[in-house]
Amino acid sequence: MSVTPEQQAEIDAERATPRQTLRAVSPGMEDHLYTAYPVLDHGFIRVVDYMGDDAAICQAARVSYGKGTKSVQNDEGLIRYLMRHWHSTPFEMCEIKLHVKLPVFVARQWIRHRTANVNEYSARYSILDREFYIPAPEALAAQSVINNQGRGEALTGEEADRVLRYLRDDAMRCYDHYEEMISQDGQAGLARELARMNLPANVYTQWYWKVDLHNLLHFLRLRADAHAQYEIRVYADEICKVVADWVPFAFKAFEDYRMGGATLSATALDCIRRMLKGEAVTQENSGMSKGEWQEFEGVLNIS
Amino acid sequence: MSVTPEQQAEIDAERATPRQTLRAVSPGMEDHLYTAYPVLDHGFIRVVDYMGDDAAICQAARVSYGKGTKSVQNDEGLIRYLMRHWHSTPFEMCEIKLHVKLPVFVARQWIRHRTANVNEYSARYSILDREFYIPAPEALAAQSVINNQGRGEALTGEEADRVLRYLRDDAMRCYDHYEEMISQDGQAGLARELARMNLPANVYTQWYWKVDLHNLLHFLRLRADAHAQYEIRVYADEICKVVADWVPFAFKAFEDYRMGGATLSATALDCIRRMLKGEAVTQENSGMSKGEWQEFEGVLNIS
Amino acid sequence: MSVTPEQQAEIDAERATPRQTLRAVSPGMEDHLYTAYPVLDHGFIRVVDYMGDDAAICQAARVSYGKGTKSVQNDEGLIRYLMRHWHSTPFEMCEIKLHVKLPVFVARQWIRHRTANVNEYSARYSILDREFYIPAPEALAAQSVINNQGRGEALTGEEADRVLRYLRDDAMRCYDHYEEMISQDGQAGLARELARMNLPANVYTQWYWKVDLHNLLHFLRLRADAHAQYEIRVYADEICKVVADWVPFAFKAFEDYRMGGATLSATALDCIRRMLKGEAVTQENSGMSKGEWQEFEGVLNIS
Amino acid sequence: MSVTPEQQAEIDAERATPRQTLRAVSPGMEDHLYTAYPVLDHGFIRVVDYMGDDAAICQAARVSYGKGTKSVQNDEGLIRYLMRHWHSTPFEMCEIKLHVKLPVFVARQWIRHRTANVNEYSARYSILDREFYIPAPEALAAQSVINNQGRGEALTGEEADRVLRYLRDDAMRCYDHYEEMISQDGQAGLARELARMNLPANVYTQWYWKVDLHNLLHFLRLRADAHAQYEIRVYADEICKVVADWVPFAFKAFEDYRMGGATLSATALDCIRRMLKGEAVTQENSGMSKGEWQEFEGVLNIS
Repeated sequence: MSVTPEQQAEIDAERATPRQTLRAVSPGMEDHLYTAYPVLDHGFIRVVDYMGDDAAICQAARVSYGKGTKSVQNDEGLIRYLMRHWHSTPFEMCEIKLHVKLPVFVARQWIRHRTANVNEYSARYSILDREFYIPAPEALAAQSVINNQGRGEALTGEEADRVLRYLRDDAMRCYDHYEEMISQDGQAGLARELARMNLPANVYTQWYWKVDLHNLLHFLRLRADAHAQYEIRVYADEICKVVADWVPFAFKAFEDYRMGGATLSATALDCIRRMLKGEAVTQENSGMSKGEWQEFEGVLNIS
Repeated sequence: MSVTPEQQAEIDAERATPRQTLRAVSPGMEDHLYTAYPVLDHGFIRVVDYMGDDAAICQAARVSYGKGTKSVQNDEGLIRYLMRHWHSTPFEMCEIKLHVKLPVFVARQWIRHRTANVNEYSARYSILDREFYIPAPEALAAQSVINNQGRGEALTGEEADRVLRYLRDDAMRCYDHYEEMISQDGQAGLARELARMNLPANVYTQWYWKVDLHNLLHFLRLRADAHAQYEIRVYADEICKVVADWVPFAFKAFEDYRMGGATLSATALDCIRRMLKGEAVTQENSGMSKGEWQEFEGVLNIS
Repeated sequence: MSVTPEQQAEIDAERATPRQTLRAVSPGMEDHLYTAYPVLDHGFIRVVDYMGDDAAICQAARVSYGKGTKSVQNDEGLIRYLMRHWHSTPFEMCEIKLHVKLPVFVARQWIRHRTANVNEYSARYSILDREFYIPAPEALAAQSVINNQGRGEALTGEEADRVLRYLRDDAMRCYDHYEEMISQDGQAGLARELARMNLPANVYTQWYWKVDLHNLLHFLRLRADAHAQYEIRVYADEICKVVADWVPFAFKAFEDYRMGGATLSATALDCIRRMLKGEAVTQENSGMSKGEWQEFEGVLNIS
Repeated sequence: MSVTPEQQAEIDAERATPRQTLRAVSPGMEDHLYTAYPVLDHGFIRVVDYMGDDAAICQAARVSYGKGTKSVQNDEGLIRYLMRHWHSTPFEMCEIKLHVKLPVFVARQWIRHRTANVNEYSARYSILDREFYIPAPEALAAQSVINNQGRGEALTGEEADRVLRYLRDDAMRCYDHYEEMISQDGQAGLARELARMNLPANVYTQWYWKVDLHNLLHFLRLRADAHAQYEIRVYADEICKVVADWVPFAFKAFEDYRMGGATLSATALDCIRRMLKGEAVTQENSGMSKGEWQEFEGVLNIS
């Protein structure tokens, strides 16, 4: 169960009472507000607040270009232009605040994105719940044999059973001892700030995370990517759905120029030019290493 | 005239059409939205958007403290506690977006606050207006004779007249030449990105500036301070009025703990302890330099 | 053993071969370079590189003040002036790079200081060592009975024994299972990026952490403070020793104005003024809450 | 004359006295230290300090990958891999401190790169010199007729003469009046913080600017680009030369993957795939706008 009854009651109350505002409103985003979308076995993301919309991006860009804009470009065209030319500041004019519940090892990756505001549940101050991420069978992946930082096929049979048993039993035992250690029934009780260190990294934490749209898209490009760890990618994917309804033009441009695009080196561009002239370019005469060439073939769907 | 008729029409349209939202709404702030408050002779500040309110600060803080909060503190008490103990992250959960028109030399000071998002009017792309800051007579201050970085009394008589004449004439002549240089009537016309360099630093520019409440309060502490240059302080003062209505508890705590407070060194605290015990502490036996002692006397209103 | 033999050999080699440079050199810091100072049971800090010294702070400040500086202030006086008036940019002109080995729950607090550069050991990519923080008996503190976020006395007797047994046994069992899960002997082997989630938060990680002096001092003010959690404070204390030798004037000013100083509210300053005039000020007539008054008494050493 | 005799004497003294250090030393960079390289008519850049080298980038990367690195990659290969996959944190482990003298309108563009440390000459505190940027004849460009934010050919004849006369005369007159206004001979003297506003944006300022290598390369990608304004590009070009000697592997990878590379959208990649299969792709059937298609043709050198 990803949301407590108290939290659900609070969410229902907030969703029931619309108020008047003069600010920019994104109708697509209003539908998502406060709703907790489940991620993994106990996690969720939910939008707590937002600022701006597609029009706000254009409004900020037009401050910069002023009366000098000869042709009145439409909003979508302008947004595509900004995205294509890496004019990032207008995208910084939108902001989103999310409430996220996530395992600690995912939180540790996530926090490396520094340009954001965070308020995390304090395990110095409060007691963590007995909630741990246990992978679904299809997510119980083997170590990749070709990539140190990747996954292979899902484990099966006895090996899968043993892994799940270890993860579950160790989590439960560690949590039992956590509870025992902090208990003040008949004993002093260990300080919470110490007891928490007995909990494994699949324990769930939660935080408020606030970020501007430019930095959010950078986060999504890295974390919704196929090479990201599955357990953070599912959060990024869920956020993508919300952003697509919040700022539809910006998100579409992001999909075209960032998610679906690729950065090619001078050497790679030169190879394409040679190929377009009919030359047979191979790794050997490409000027690229084997690894680069493989990635290059992947981008062009050749091989 | 600080707002163009076009801008005023846009402001009026936006103020006329309230919309429904499920987000946190600050009634005090809604009243300010879009209204341009004049600053200096041609400048203004106006709030374009905001996120959060006093309750949002508390909501974020309570995510951190979780169920561990024994006593349900009221919002004002909690906000004072956070401010007093420099718990800054909950204040980062509020955000404001301002449209500001300001002289370039003020903009150069302002931009040094790096943790903010900015879209400035581009003089590479567009043509600047013929608007220059000319100080009012009472703001036409002499160089301080005791402080290299400060002002003395207002200039008077012939000296004041000459200064005003120089400022006005030089601005007008530079702008005349700016216009002539970029003109494409009968000539190629100098590139705007070059021509702009003929304009003095009292020319007005404008930007969208977006910042979180924590960083805004830091800006206000430094720029609404008596030692700040008058021309930026008047902007900070005007922003203070808006913030006071947006997050009244946070602003009151800010006034008490930051604007009206003072940081005392270990040496200064020791002097106070000695004075409270009845000892006659003077600069000579204080352990402070003359400069420090003067500042210390200023804080305590003794001397 | 906090440093591996390989690391020690590398350190010894680096310490043995001084090179020539034209850059600013801090003799006090050169003595610390590369030496790993033990912290907790398996952790350490060691300085890998640094930029600047006390003179570099002054050099940057003098760029700002230029020829306008009437009196040629000595370096120590200038640094005290900068620290007292929160002129932080000259302190940003010094930089330090540390190699730190620390438990994950300490790393999670540490990383919240966002204005720094970090390269952490990747447990997606590599295998973590069997090293866990187990508190020394005197650090095995009870939960504070007056402060949700604090510690009381050390646990004793049977309770202390049980806590230590739990921490040790759970860490060892979790690590045994971690090893078994990733083993590729006779099985596929769980992906490292998944297996790591079975490890409790007292497991050690390590990183390179690079930060400028201004942000380092901010970190030290919060983390070398008596209210910081003991397990991060010992790291901050060890860093303080190094900084004291690197930039002795800056560190001394930091101790006087930051570590030993206090920020007083407008209300508190008013109380001091009243007390100095002989008035009997109590919590009731102070205008402060009970909590604030207690803190105020603590600062003045009265009560 | 870009460096004062006093500054040159200081530079000579610093260059004359090498010291011993245990830190990483970049021989290529030591040769550049303190030397002021002229830029524009009165500006310069000079390296004041640096931290790290190519090996330091690899050292930080290897902390992350730890013992998991199967093949001991050579430094150049590792650096190319990091650059290609946007692993930016190891590049953040190098730092550079520059002293730059530059016109105010260039400084205003430069400062928009927020992730850096800056100490600028204070015109509130000190008096600015009589030094203004006057373009060389070949840099006196006309406004572009196709791009609002660009330049065309150089102005010639009478138009060029008039522009140069305006720029020179206005600068001199404004400076004359600046001097007169602040003079305290027989008058109070206007405060410096006010008088400076009479100076046009081609007046020179100077600052210390400190930045990490990752953010420096981002700056160089944008500012050494053909679309950057000439007056900032010449600074970026000069910095490129220094960086090429400081971290040769990183700079070479930067040239290949960033400066010489290009980011292509999903649509553009699809067009390339179709073209490689022999399809005749035109703007009309490309799915791109005219502007995008032109840029695409430019990248591929077709048209």
